[in-house]
Amino acid sequence: MSTALLTDRYELTMLDAALASGVAERRTVFEVFARRLPPGRRFGVVAGQGRLSALLPQVLYGSDDLAHLDFLRPATRAWLDGRPLSLSISGYAEGETYAPGSPVLTVEGCFGEALLLETLVLSVLNADTAVASAAARMVLAARHRPLIEMGSRRTHEQAAVSAARAAYIAGFALSSNLEAGRRHGVPTAGTSAHAFTLVHESEAAAFTAQVASLGAGTTLLVDTYDTAQGIRTAVQVAGTELGAIRLDSGDPRVEVPKARALLDELGAMRTRIVVTGDLDEHQIESLAPQAVDAYGVGTSVVTGSGAPTAGFVYKLVAAAREDGADALLHPVAKTSEGKGTVGGRKWAFRCGPEREALRLHAGGAGRPLQRPLPGGDDLAAARATCAEALAELTPEARRLDPGPPAWTATTEDP
Amino acid sequence: MSTALLTDRYELTMLDAALASGVAERRTVFEVFARRLPPGRRFGVVAGQGRLSALLPQVLYGSDDLAHLDFLRPATRAWLDGRPLSLSISGYAEGETYAPGSPVLTVEGCFGEALLLETLVLSVLNADTAVASAAARMVLAARHRPLIEMGSRRTHEQAAVSAARAAYIAGFALSSNLEAGRRHGVPTAGTSAHAFTLVHESEAAAFTAQVASLGAGTTLLVDTYDTAQGIRTAVQVAGTELGAIRLDSGDPRVEVPKARALLDELGAMRTRIVVTGDLDEHQIESLAPQAVDAYGVGTSVVTGSGAPTAGFVYKLVAAAREDGADALLHPVAKTSEGKGTVGGRKWAFRCGPEREALRLHAGGAGRPLQRPLPGGDDLAAARATCAEALAELTPEARRLDPGPPAWTATTEDP
Repeated sequence: MSTALLTDRYELTMLDAALASGVAERRTVFEVFARRLPPGRRFGVVAGQGRLSALLPQVLYGSDDLAHLDFLRPATRAWLDGRPLSLSISGYAEGETYAPGSPVLTVEGCFGEALLLETLVLSVLNADTAVASAAARMVLAARHRPLIEMGSRRTHEQAAVSAARAAYIAGFALSSNLEAGRRHGVPTAGTSAHAFTLVHESEAAAFTAQVASLGAGTTLLVDTYDTAQGIRTAVQVAGTELGAIRLDSGDPRVEVPKARALLDELGAMRTRIVVTGDLDEHQIESLAPQAVDAYGVGTSVVTGSGAPTAGFVYKLVAAAREDGADALLHPVAKTSEGKGTVGGRKWAFRCGPEREALRLHAGGAGRPLQRPLPGGDDLAAARATCAEALAELTPEARRLDPGPPAWTATTEDP
Repeated sequence: MSTALLTDRYELTMLDAALASGVAERRTVFEVFARRLPPGRRFGVVAGQGRLSALLPQVLYGSDDLAHLDFLRPATRAWLDGRPLSLSISGYAEGETYAPGSPVLTVEGCFGEALLLETLVLSVLNADTAVASAAARMVLAARHRPLIEMGSRRTHEQAAVSAARAAYIAGFALSSNLEAGRRHGVPTAGTSAHAFTLVHESEAAAFTAQVASLGAGTTLLVDTYDTAQGIRTAVQVAGTELGAIRLDSGDPRVEVPKARALLDELGAMRTRIVVTGDLDEHQIESLAPQAVDAYGVGTSVVTGSGAPTAGFVYKLVAAAREDGADALLHPVAKTSEGKGTVGGRKWAFRCGPEREALRLHAGGAGRPLQRPLPGGDDLAAARATCAEALAELTPEARRLDPGPPAWTATTEDP
């Protein structure tokens, strides 16, 4: 499917006017950054670069696309026809943490081409980063207990696939989404729903069927009727080697200790307890003292836990005043009230956990944060990047209660 | 692209176990409903049925899909291989209002097939309904002034296309999303961004270029530097026949009257004012006394204005106790704490603006709300349905402040 029209109409009408006025071929630099984090968030995790790497080469205007752009002048359509974009793009590694001002993506090239990417770049980064940022907080709250992403049904069917991928990058262990397994290699898992129990003559018949099919190592959902009776039946059917039970209703701070005691009493000491049902990072943290072995998270992770979009913007920060690929870049900035921008292309460096320096030149102290894009779609590398970045956070930054950003990316004096 | 794997792994493992235990062929009924509306919402607008109508025939397991289902028994894969689903589906008309308990979709057929649809059905209805429900509140708040959906960049690139469609159903006039124009026939519009002004030598040069390309009827973005000067330059360049100006920064309650007075002073009495910039239904309502001619809405509409998912669930409500397509259906219900369900297939009737009756049989007073699916993807019809349904709401239901649902769909005594 062509990605050429996954954009706003004004990108194309601006191109049309820019080609006519002669500025479309001017060298420009656009930066993607967030003016602020979602309210109360102390850090973010940027994701989507791997998906962008796969999507960018598909931004090609073919005859079917051009037929739908009949509002453009013929010369503009000819300029677009089959044009491979020759932009130079760099960005933060996928899974890296970011703060207000971090230039997470930089696009350099002629104005006309750079315009075309704005909407697609922002859609991908805003969606995937919103999920990864929420997921990272849940990973911190879970304190090394595994998390399963199971929110596909709560978001758009294609956003669900990307959300599973973003949650995995942030440290989730598994996803329920099969297409995320096929398309991105995310490991998948799944057990059963209440309907499966209801359609059988009895809970025992349902458990027997599931164990026959998936083995005693499976996870049985025990709360369709009465949880205590469900647990007894589960152990009767599967034996004390039952892999896990799932609790999906009631208050887990009450249900988990009761279930653990009952399992132990029944001799199922190694049977794990999986808790699901409208969990978010705060509930996960509150369950730390309980004998929970894994968390299943749905709605809150795929909707960014209160922040469904990352708030990234795509802003022109430098432009040449004359034509040609070698023309000198000059900083540009708008001065709109409350929406001003800082001109000039920025190079970003991590200088310890609480400092991110932006410089108007490429060198200097610190770990350089930007690298070329497209750079492939390496999920394992992104997951490792995120684990390292989360380990680097200060105790203050890891807190879940609302607070200011743990750091802000700021421009150093030249 | 195959939709077969846009589902949760457990739907397939349940099928595997159900085929083995012999319940997969049993006749069942599943209903889609919301236990509650998002906090403070007084009604919802259901959307997505048209997209579902197009997606459902694609739920077919081909050889590439089956290769990724290697965790299933060979007999299960053979059962799935190329199987066209023979389910009977009915649902509320797209664009119809709904309340807690409304059975917005009903799926009847064998358990094994009905299982397969759960995740996809919920993804589509939850995503599209979240947008349509938020958009409908904005349409009410705008009081017949046109609304432009321009939030593509704030959500997943494919969710953006569906969001544009859902907002249009709810009464938005236009969308910025070009793919929504191609795929769904949503009318599109667009003007220009700050980058277009910044890349030119001056604001006047940018406006001249835009007017040369799009005509004096275009909308000029006047707040890149100084809004009053921007308006003067805009009228100088385009003349008093300038179509519109766009204000994207500052407080519109201050900026709009100043802009209107200046335009009038300059003789541009017919030049319209378009306001954009982080608007939601509450800000739109607060701008009712101002001389705003159109609103551009981004983030808040595509993210459901605080409620990014509709909270629909897909629950088994009836099942046969023996095999065969004609076997008698019996109500089933789970009794999980806080998550109980009402058993039995429900027929829904609208009986005035504050009453929605559910009956366990098909007849009786009121307007029947359910109709067969797939039923095509008729955007104009959905838009008309929504306009009628919104017109039917009580003044109480139309209020934007938090309140209880205007009605609840309740089961009548038999």
